[in-house]
Amino acid sequence: MLTKRAVILLSGGLDSATVLAAARAEGYECYTMSFDYGQRHRSELAASRRISAALGAVEHKVIGIDLDGMGGSALTDSSLAIPESGADKTAAEDIPLTYVPARNTVFLSLALGWAEVLKAYDIFIGVNDVDYSGYPDCRMAFIQAFEKVANLATREGVEGRAFRIQAPLQSMSKAAIIRLGTQLGVDYALTVSCYQADNQGRACGVCDSCTLRKQGFLNADINDPTRYF
Amino acid sequence: MLTKRAVILLSGGLDSATVLAAARAEGYECYTMSFDYGQRHRSELAASRRISAALGAVEHKVIGIDLDGMGGSALTDSSLAIPESGADKTAAEDIPLTYVPARNTVFLSLALGWAEVLKAYDIFIGVNDVDYSGYPDCRMAFIQAFEKVANLATREGVEGRAFRIQAPLQSMSKAAIIRLGTQLGVDYALTVSCYQADNQGRACGVCDSCTLRKQGFLNADINDPTRYF
Repeated sequence: MLTKRAVILLSGGLDSATVLAAARAEGYECYTMSFDYGQRHRSELAASRRISAALGAVEHKVIGIDLDGMGGSALTDSSLAIPESGADKTAAEDIPLTYVPARNTVFLSLALGWAEVLKAYDIFIGVNDVDYSGYPDCRMAFIQAFEKVANLATREGVEGRAFRIQAPLQSMSKAAIIRLGTQLGVDYALTVSCYQADNQGRACGVCDSCTLRKQGFLNADINDPTRYF
Repeated sequence: MLTKRAVILLSGGLDSATVLAAARAEGYECYTMSFDYGQRHRSELAASRRISAALGAVEHKVIGIDLDGMGGSALTDSSLAIPESGADKTAAEDIPLTYVPARNTVFLSLALGWAEVLKAYDIFIGVNDVDYSGYPDCRMAFIQAFEKVANLATREGVEGRAFRIQAPLQSMSKAAIIRLGTQLGVDYALTVSCYQADNQGRACGVCDSCTLRKQGFLNADINDPTRYF
């Protein structure tokens, strides 16, 4: 049997850890990729390393990108603490300030580059509709459009469609994701979802991401192993 | 009159310098972007700075990305000096070894991120059919597919199509590009096209890129200011 390789985008959070476990369960040899882009919540990088090791990834790569000087998001720009006002008011109200410009496009592009080198024709990403809440690059239409780009951008694409962008959590609730991961042996104590986690990976318990995660464990009726500060 | 802003992908070469001049001539306020991705031909970064200043860009940003460890291209991977053989033979013959995995996808993604922050709805890239010669991400179909991604990935895209990926050189010959740039005042002595230029920006005169460029000046009947070593 031929080995199927996949590149898995790993943020260190609950969703992408579950995606990694799901890809492994489907028989993929998994190559995980994380990004050091000047994010405030640095402990997610340590979490990604731990998760990759615990869930049997073949290789874990951290790509550095200096999005830091680009501005535009409270996740990377420490000068942004309150929503913008004025001309951009509507957009600022609809889309969380934790949005990073073109983030998933950048991440998928770099995953595609590595996938091409590895001859890994499946790229997994943990986006889902619950997380959408205003992030345009979490929608299925975006994922499908990027898959088209992937197949036009690459050597393999010259000879026809080859790459698949897999988003297996797309339509799952947070509780369903937690149930799936628990079945597949994910240790969620290793994961960090909090936007302002401390350097030991402990969570605030009050940000949007923490709230979604807490409610997910409650709804799944599974013990929440998250450490809060 | 409102200011039109544009992000211009600038490699330091002849094509992208011409694109910058063309965007300026169309009245855009130009923000230029270059990438430090571990390329062998480092003098292109110095060239990009000089070109941005000479052609009146408002700001020039250099984004660092560590594609270096990703492998797969002779432009970044010093262990690759001869074409691959074996199973990949056909692809290796058709596509130059100077191909960098998913390069234009990565570059356009980062340009999109900056464009979103700047509210610059036009992104210029200097791809053209002459340069294609096996690079899939220089084709118009790729550019169009990426434009669709751009408009699905972004805040602005939520409310309808907004971004345009402009590739004004797409169907121009090298000679026509050189004639256009010369009309627009581009000093091609500032540009570096050579894949193995030295650290003073002098060119080898024999690589594919040098050969195309030389022939372009000949065909345009314009004096070639390139310095060769």
